[in-house]
Amino acid sequence: MLDTATAAATRLAQPDALLQTNAIDMLREDTLLSASLWVNVALAGLAILVFVYMGRNVETPRARLIWVSTLLVPLVSIASYSALLSGLTIGTLEMPAGHALAGESVLSPWGRYLTWTLSTPMILLALGLLAGTDTAKLFTAITMDIGMCVTGLAAALTTQSYLLRWAFYGISSAFFLVVLYILLAEWPADAVEAGTADIFGTLKVLTVVLWLGYPILWALGTEGLALLDVAVTSWGYSGLDILAKYVFAFLLLRWVAGNEQTVSTAPPAATAAATDD
Amino acid sequence: MLDTATAAATRLAQPDALLQTNAIDMLREDTLLSASLWVNVALAGLAILVFVYMGRNVETPRARLIWVSTLLVPLVSIASYSALLSGLTIGTLEMPAGHALAGESVLSPWGRYLTWTLSTPMILLALGLLAGTDTAKLFTAITMDIGMCVTGLAAALTTQSYLLRWAFYGISSAFFLVVLYILLAEWPADAVEAGTADIFGTLKVLTVVLWLGYPILWALGTEGLALLDVAVTSWGYSGLDILAKYVFAFLLLRWVAGNEQTVSTAPPAATAAATDD
Amino acid sequence: MLDTATAAATRLAQPDALLQTNAIDMLREDTLLSASLWVNVALAGLAILVFVYMGRNVETPRARLIWVSTLLVPLVSIASYSALLSGLTIGTLEMPAGHALAGESVLSPWGRYLTWTLSTPMILLALGLLAGTDTAKLFTAITMDIGMCVTGLAAALTTQSYLLRWAFYGISSAFFLVVLYILLAEWPADAVEAGTADIFGTLKVLTVVLWLGYPILWALGTEGLALLDVAVTSWGYSGLDILAKYVFAFLLLRWVAGNEQTVSTAPPAATAAATDD
Repeated sequence: MLDTATAAATRLAQPDALLQTNAIDMLREDTLLSASLWVNVALAGLAILVFVYMGRNVETPRARLIWVSTLLVPLVSIASYSALLSGLTIGTLEMPAGHALAGESVLSPWGRYLTWTLSTPMILLALGLLAGTDTAKLFTAITMDIGMCVTGLAAALTTQSYLLRWAFYGISSAFFLVVLYILLAEWPADAVEAGTADIFGTLKVLTVVLWLGYPILWALGTEGLALLDVAVTSWGYSGLDILAKYVFAFLLLRWVAGNEQTVSTAPPAATAAATDD
Repeated sequence: MLDTATAAATRLAQPDALLQTNAIDMLREDTLLSASLWVNVALAGLAILVFVYMGRNVETPRARLIWVSTLLVPLVSIASYSALLSGLTIGTLEMPAGHALAGESVLSPWGRYLTWTLSTPMILLALGLLAGTDTAKLFTAITMDIGMCVTGLAAALTTQSYLLRWAFYGISSAFFLVVLYILLAEWPADAVEAGTADIFGTLKVLTVVLWLGYPILWALGTEGLALLDVAVTSWGYSGLDILAKYVFAFLLLRWVAGNEQTVSTAPPAATAAATDD
Repeated sequence: MLDTATAAATRLAQPDALLQTNAIDMLREDTLLSASLWVNVALAGLAILVFVYMGRNVETPRARLIWVSTLLVPLVSIASYSALLSGLTIGTLEMPAGHALAGESVLSPWGRYLTWTLSTPMILLALGLLAGTDTAKLFTAITMDIGMCVTGLAAALTTQSYLLRWAFYGISSAFFLVVLYILLAEWPADAVEAGTADIFGTLKVLTVVLWLGYPILWALGTEGLALLDVAVTSWGYSGLDILAKYVFAFLLLRWVAGNEQTVSTAPPAATAAATDD
């Protein structure tokens, strides 16, 4: 009888709050899952050391701004993965009717979506500065990217309606389309003018292909159609983060360190954009 | 006895947390209330389509910046109202002693205050760019506006003291006075120099009158003196949002699309402000 | 038996959520503790009035930008301390094994860390503008400062692992080192060029010495090694806030009001930085 009272009380008291303790226990019991987080703490730490070393001689303001915004990517990442591991930004959610795991407790690493709100704008800032774009386009790319991440967080946290989970997924994807349009249709032309077309082309393809992986993984993973289990989903995100963040940043910084002149002698419009933001 | 244990446990466990489930049930049972949210999802969606179409030929950077910041208003709005409907940013609060509904569960659509933090700066950015103002004034208007929204959120969420609810209301109103001062005393003169005095004058009056409606509605609604019931309060906010956001944005965009030359040939100071931010 | 059920339910339902009610009761019973908060509400209010008066004649855009960002410091502060007093941003946490108070409920004024995220960038913005620095350095200082505050918040909220509390403390301190480097090695040279070396030197020393006090206090206070009790810790933070915020801002504003010419006739690079941000 006590158990019944307890269960009823728990249900009433916290119908859909995020239960941290369950999540931390899941993490401790599932080595494969926790490894997917620890590997990123280690790689982000390594990336920070390498990037600081690579940027030690960068001196012109515009190149330094690209360098710092790129360096912020692994800095946000190490804080983000530490927060997941500490249980601060991870929890379990009870999925709504309609979901493949309806009624079950599903691990939600919601901190990922939150910290992407901080790290992905830094990637776009670095790319936009590299392409020498103007303020209006940079503002558009970054605000739409933040819209994408925040509504992605809403999709992950919604537990009252299966339909509304996918509605937020749709809104988030619409924001993503605007970001893609800028990456594929607007900035390549700006990069030609700025003399950075080669490196921008490489990084653009890398970013577009890898960023497409995130919504696909969400749809297939535990929070969407649940075709993949929780550890595989987590490794998927961690793998994408490794490529889209540290490898991306390494390529960008290696080029900037070796071509600081090109970056600092960009055309007037580009320079303006660089120093203005 | 079970019920007593349950009730006691609930009270102990979540003394003043936001109960999502109650709020979602209230929404489902009250058609008038939920209609006040759905109508904004529909209108925001329509506004997005119309605004994208209206801005299709806008090309100069400054006009595009105004267009994108205006377009972000219904984009934030559709996400905000979806979050209210999904139960993510809505809850019930037990009002403190002194409040007309003290001890009762009152529906708190606290997500409104949170998302205004994101949408109202976009309105001020568009207005400031239209007036061709300088960075210092734009920074002032936007930071004070964010202060107004965040302390408004605090006013809505405070449940330990009736007095402190109104203290936050007072702080929020003080921030609002600074915004009003800039709208009424600073930007009109800038707009004359920029050659946008006519349209700025119209939008200024619309904004000032409608924005004054929000604190008045808060004071009269369920969260303040509780003279209006929850559905009427919600319709009040939704109606204000429709006029202050979509109608406002429509008028602004129609003018910008038809007067792109005026916007892009603003005086030096104004141009600087436009491209710098 | 009822009590057992209730206690079990409470433990299950809210394993590590922040209990507001306990915190508010602690505040009400501990006059010394609550006085440490009220004194800041009073002083922040006084500072706002004094600063508005001091800045009444400041007219050039760059000096006004410094003035507004400085004025925002007590504005954020009064909202922050009101939120602590209202119980909104204060709670009790059960410390993890290893902590001196392991298993006990410890008062966490986590709202302090959250609001420093908003107020300390304003201090750095004012200092950077005073030194006439470029956008890249200002961006670096402010983003690293935000990283410091957000990971400080994570350190305060982590309850699952004592080690991870100190890991976040370490990450936060690493961000702080970057801020210190900019304050001590980069901006002094910029300030010499801008003709503001004297006042910048004074404010730099004040800021560096006082800001070092915060991590030391965290380490010694209830959230770290718990050598100081909760009221002493709170008075420590309140005292540091009084010196690092209101006294700092007073010195800065008095100088700006009396030397507006120097600020507005800064060298080109400095002027660009001022109007660009």
